[in-house]
Amino acid sequence: MNKIITISRQFGSGGREIGRRLAQELGFAYYDQEIVNELAERTEYAKDYLREIDQINPLPLMPITIAQSFSQTIDPISEMNHDIFQRQSDLILELSERSDSVIVGRAADYLLREKQNLFRIFIVADEEFKLNRCCEKREVDLNRTNKQMIKDIRGVDKRRARFYEFYTHQTWGDPINYDLVINTSRIGIRRAVDMVKQMVMHWDPPVQSE
Amino acid sequence: MNKIITISRQFGSGGREIGRRLAQELGFAYYDQEIVNELAERTEYAKDYLREIDQINPLPLMPITIAQSFSQTIDPISEMNHDIFQRQSDLILELSERSDSVIVGRAADYLLREKQNLFRIFIVADEEFKLNRCCEKREVDLNRTNKQMIKDIRGVDKRRARFYEFYTHQTWGDPINYDLVINTSRIGIRRAVDMVKQMVMHWDPPVQSE
Repeated sequence: MNKIITISRQFGSGGREIGRRLAQELGFAYYDQEIVNELAERTEYAKDYLREIDQINPLPLMPITIAQSFSQTIDPISEMNHDIFQRQSDLILELSERSDSVIVGRAADYLLREKQNLFRIFIVADEEFKLNRCCEKREVDLNRTNKQMIKDIRGVDKRRARFYEFYTHQTWGDPINYDLVINTSRIGIRRAVDMVKQMVMHWDPPVQSE
Repeated sequence: MNKIITISRQFGSGGREIGRRLAQELGFAYYDQEIVNELAERTEYAKDYLREIDQINPLPLMPITIAQSFSQTIDPISEMNHDIFQRQSDLILELSERSDSVIVGRAADYLLREKQNLFRIFIVADEEFKLNRCCEKREVDLNRTNKQMIKDIRGVDKRRARFYEFYTHQTWGDPINYDLVINTSRIGIRRAVDMVKQMVMHWDPPVQSE
């Protein structure tokens, strides 16, 4: 059975890099931006639109099923975004059947929760670490003050949390929803990769009582 | 410099056993109940009273410093418990200087937060795992229904959280306060021990950017 690693992460914590390195070093398929590209090929949605949706994670005002029970006229943008989420979820399930994989974000830990050989990782870091990393990688607007940049970084996570909670009814980042939560502030990215690699490579059916 | 592992844990998650095995296998000193015994020897408090305090983690109604600024007449029980916490904290600091150690609970992760070579571990598990484990270890009243036992288990964690938050002003179990959070439900206790052991044994000064 395929091994699947899902990586959820605070913005700036190095989670994406951990995912990329894990895939490289373990020889697993890697899915992040790739999911957007594949969706664009399969659907009528333009790649740029999908990329924008992927960045900002907009949410319908209420779950589509509830909206439908109130009225036939649902906000068409909401409906479209919901459709994208649905098709993205189907794609993630399909990819997880194809080969050993690392999947970043997109509530994949929840979508694949019934799978055996699933490793659900969440990466956090303290604000100093995240700020330094975002500056280094130019993932924040360097013209802003440190205080503003920290606010921007928190803003990304707030959107991620809302997206996750909307679709999963679980709390984003609550350790109970993951197998391992790594704080990269002191452990660092190299060690985090090694830790997950060790676990995945030497995995055998879990023995709870042992 | 001494290596110190602090273990915080949800009740029933197997955290204490992980700590005990880590100490055994790494040859570290192990401090849990031992702290109560040592305190009883050093102070005028009776061991039974200290043990009771240790179990229920009672809190002063407000921090002693604030209470003092309002009035000279502080509840003597609160003051006594605060004094115990203070002397326990001093003892933990002293023990951490003595040798490589594993310290379970008692907000040790916070007390020792400035130390180098500190590994702050938090152990969680899902409710089914915790219930099974508590029944197996007879740490819950087996005459109660499953629902009542789950309530009891949650109650212990609520007290732990309140105690931690009172003294540290941090959120108990928030991954940002630890280096590693392990969910034993699927990882299991043996693998959790190995994971921390690997990390501690192969530790060298952290390189954040790597």
